[in-house]
Amino acid sequence: MKHNFYSSEDVENVPEFIEEALKYKYAPVQLVGTGKTLVMIFFNSSLRTRLSTEIAARKIGMEVITININDAWQWELEDGSAMVFDTVEHVKDAAKVIGTYADIVAIRAFPGFTDRTADYADKLINTYMRHSPVPVINMESAIRHPLQSLADLMTIREHVKVENPKIVLSWAPHVKALPQAVSNSFLEWCGAAGHEVIVTHPKGYELAKEFIDGHRVEYDREAAFADADVVYVKNWSSYKQYGSILSKNTDWTITDQTMKLTNNAAFMHCLPIRRNLVAMDNVIDSNSSLIYEQAENRLHSAAFVLKNLI
Amino acid sequence: MKHNFYSSEDVENVPEFIEEALKYKYAPVQLVGTGKTLVMIFFNSSLRTRLSTEIAARKIGMEVITININDAWQWELEDGSAMVFDTVEHVKDAAKVIGTYADIVAIRAFPGFTDRTADYADKLINTYMRHSPVPVINMESAIRHPLQSLADLMTIREHVKVENPKIVLSWAPHVKALPQAVSNSFLEWCGAAGHEVIVTHPKGYELAKEFIDGHRVEYDREAAFADADVVYVKNWSSYKQYGSILSKNTDWTITDQTMKLTNNAAFMHCLPIRRNLVAMDNVIDSNSSLIYEQAENRLHSAAFVLKNLI
Amino acid sequence: MKHNFYSSEDVENVPEFIEEALKYKYAPVQLVGTGKTLVMIFFNSSLRTRLSTEIAARKIGMEVITININDAWQWELEDGSAMVFDTVEHVKDAAKVIGTYADIVAIRAFPGFTDRTADYADKLINTYMRHSPVPVINMESAIRHPLQSLADLMTIREHVKVENPKIVLSWAPHVKALPQAVSNSFLEWCGAAGHEVIVTHPKGYELAKEFIDGHRVEYDREAAFADADVVYVKNWSSYKQYGSILSKNTDWTITDQTMKLTNNAAFMHCLPIRRNLVAMDNVIDSNSSLIYEQAENRLHSAAFVLKNLI
Repeated sequence: MKHNFYSSEDVENVPEFIEEALKYKYAPVQLVGTGKTLVMIFFNSSLRTRLSTEIAARKIGMEVITININDAWQWELEDGSAMVFDTVEHVKDAAKVIGTYADIVAIRAFPGFTDRTADYADKLINTYMRHSPVPVINMESAIRHPLQSLADLMTIREHVKVENPKIVLSWAPHVKALPQAVSNSFLEWCGAAGHEVIVTHPKGYELAKEFIDGHRVEYDREAAFADADVVYVKNWSSYKQYGSILSKNTDWTITDQTMKLTNNAAFMHCLPIRRNLVAMDNVIDSNSSLIYEQAENRLHSAAFVLKNLI
Repeated sequence: MKHNFYSSEDVENVPEFIEEALKYKYAPVQLVGTGKTLVMIFFNSSLRTRLSTEIAARKIGMEVITININDAWQWELEDGSAMVFDTVEHVKDAAKVIGTYADIVAIRAFPGFTDRTADYADKLINTYMRHSPVPVINMESAIRHPLQSLADLMTIREHVKVENPKIVLSWAPHVKALPQAVSNSFLEWCGAAGHEVIVTHPKGYELAKEFIDGHRVEYDREAAFADADVVYVKNWSSYKQYGSILSKNTDWTITDQTMKLTNNAAFMHCLPIRRNLVAMDNVIDSNSSLIYEQAENRLHSAAFVLKNLI
Repeated sequence: MKHNFYSSEDVENVPEFIEEALKYKYAPVQLVGTGKTLVMIFFNSSLRTRLSTEIAARKIGMEVITININDAWQWELEDGSAMVFDTVEHVKDAAKVIGTYADIVAIRAFPGFTDRTADYADKLINTYMRHSPVPVINMESAIRHPLQSLADLMTIREHVKVENPKIVLSWAPHVKALPQAVSNSFLEWCGAAGHEVIVTHPKGYELAKEFIDGHRVEYDREAAFADADVVYVKNWSSYKQYGSILSKNTDWTITDQTMKLTNNAAFMHCLPIRRNLVAMDNVIDSNSSLIYEQAENRLHSAAFVLKNLI
């Protein structure tokens, strides 16, 4: 693995990486992190990521310190600017200083949704990585969530026993404008793992070309779900009309009728899930649901990434 | 002990439990928690509970992760509801996921004070416990605070050398509407330990029948305090006019005159205490005050409960 | 060292203390903190102090618990007052209780800027220390920041190879009213270490007499910088017109022209620094800049202080 864990491109061979991560999951714990410190920095809320990453680090012997950026202050991202407004510290100073204290740094920073170009440049984490003397883990940036995708692919590898499964990524309705990060990364990692994904969503919800390339959009929802082996469900806001909610159409809610179109597909979601909006209780709680397996694999994907960076 | 530590009913024999907890307090520390993780979740503020529970867990070798729910998001409690409003994750999903990462979970969640029936159903922690695959510790729920009561009874056992002490629970004035949890649990645990408590308060402050049963209300304050061996002081808001402040009468403030009515009684309070409102400085700082002993026993009650759940 | 680490007066011999701290920096780590607990309490934001102190403590084996006071509640400082307003717990109760759980307590609490006499009495931390049964570390109080100053002097000792260096403390412009704590402590510690400091600032920015005594104010900026070996830069708000911003004059911004007046001086700042306002990028990022060395020494100054208090 490369110096950081930012995207699938930091992993040389994604299929092998997934196999190794699964082996590591069942191997005896080794305290490879003893004497090392992980600093986790949150610009945004978290439950699973915070708990799973911290526990993974502690299980291999690391010390962990978690900071909400509100415990400190906002960072300046622009080089050369006169810092006369709200930002208190330049990201390059923060990165260099934290890098003298920590052995690995993990960052969560969501998109601002006001400027698509800025969000898709993923400036905060990229600037941080450029100045950090120590490895950086992406705990969900403006456009990517690689720890989630690694856990997702580990879960598919473990539980979907079909060769060349048909994987569908389906948009679902939501009441808030959500990032595209989970969907983007799912496509990126599936592509790197050799899976073409069928993406289905209402018109206007097309994802960024850089992520959709190598996959296939199917606007005919029934055709998309037909014979699917995996249904990965996620809401995202529009990329084209950036950050907008174009539809709250509950025809896109996943129901048992939807699932009957499939080849007894596995139901997947990264959580938190809005029940009876994104999908109905009887789908989420069905035997085909892998949501808790995905969540559990967050622990193992984080542990494997940490071990590789140490 | 049962699977959870929610109320005195999770303990088979309360008097024996108190004796064992005191033995454990003075026994050499054993690292029975090594390799185990405690996740503490706070919906409300805390100082003593947060520090004492976390330090107790670390002393026996556990890893501890503390989350303020504001670091994550609000939980849905209703089954089957369409989650189209403010709640982001269903408590059952949170409980199942956290239970795959943690070995024990501890929760603090105060009453909402808008719906007495809902508060007294103690829905959040009860729903959490129903779905949690791992043991749950009540760090003060809407209506109970068992870690406090266990520490209180350990303190009485250690420091009150009277056989069958007369124990008085006295209401005191306050400027804010406080929960009934500490008072409820004190009555519940005293009852389970074989102590009848004399409860004294202005009319309108009667506690819930389920907690007052087995104890005695004495509206005549002087009669209540006469010959008391223990004076446990606490403000609570009205149960009948639920959540209301009916009186700020400082005649109910505990003074040295009040204490002179007693049999040189021990003065107890769970802290934080509003000085010179709930009780006067010279009472709080007197030799008969056990407030710091109670606070110290919070460490030992937490350690003993954790050890029993491991 | 005395019982607490509040100011330079808690250290018997400051020059020796600095030498020993530097030896300790390069000595093999010893787990002198095993079984001990540090509780860190923040009334204000922090990045470097939080990370460096916590990591220093963990490296020597201590358990660390960090509390933002907003996770708990406000403390009462006045003795004898009837607590009928916003404060929930008296500092003396907090100090006594925390002292039964922790082996060392560290506190950050900035000035209120409404009452100079109150701020300069440094009431919160002084009251806390008076009631604390365990040692207290000042992580920046209303008027002092000794961990920073110790790190600063360690950095000068390591990197400034001039005998009797000319040390300049220069005010620089800022958009917010900042405390005088870093400047006060720098003067105090330099004095105790035998260094006279030349202090330069616009009129009206004179520091408190108790800190300026033994040093020299030079209003002629060019004269101050001439032949300087160390330029320590810091904004502070006015002491005389307490807490006011009297000037935002960017003539006081440190530029390469300013630095050319000096004897190739080391540039120092405690961070966070507002770039291109307090000093220009090409100064901050020059080879003469010691800002990251200072930040790194925060880890070692904290570790040395903790080791001495244990």
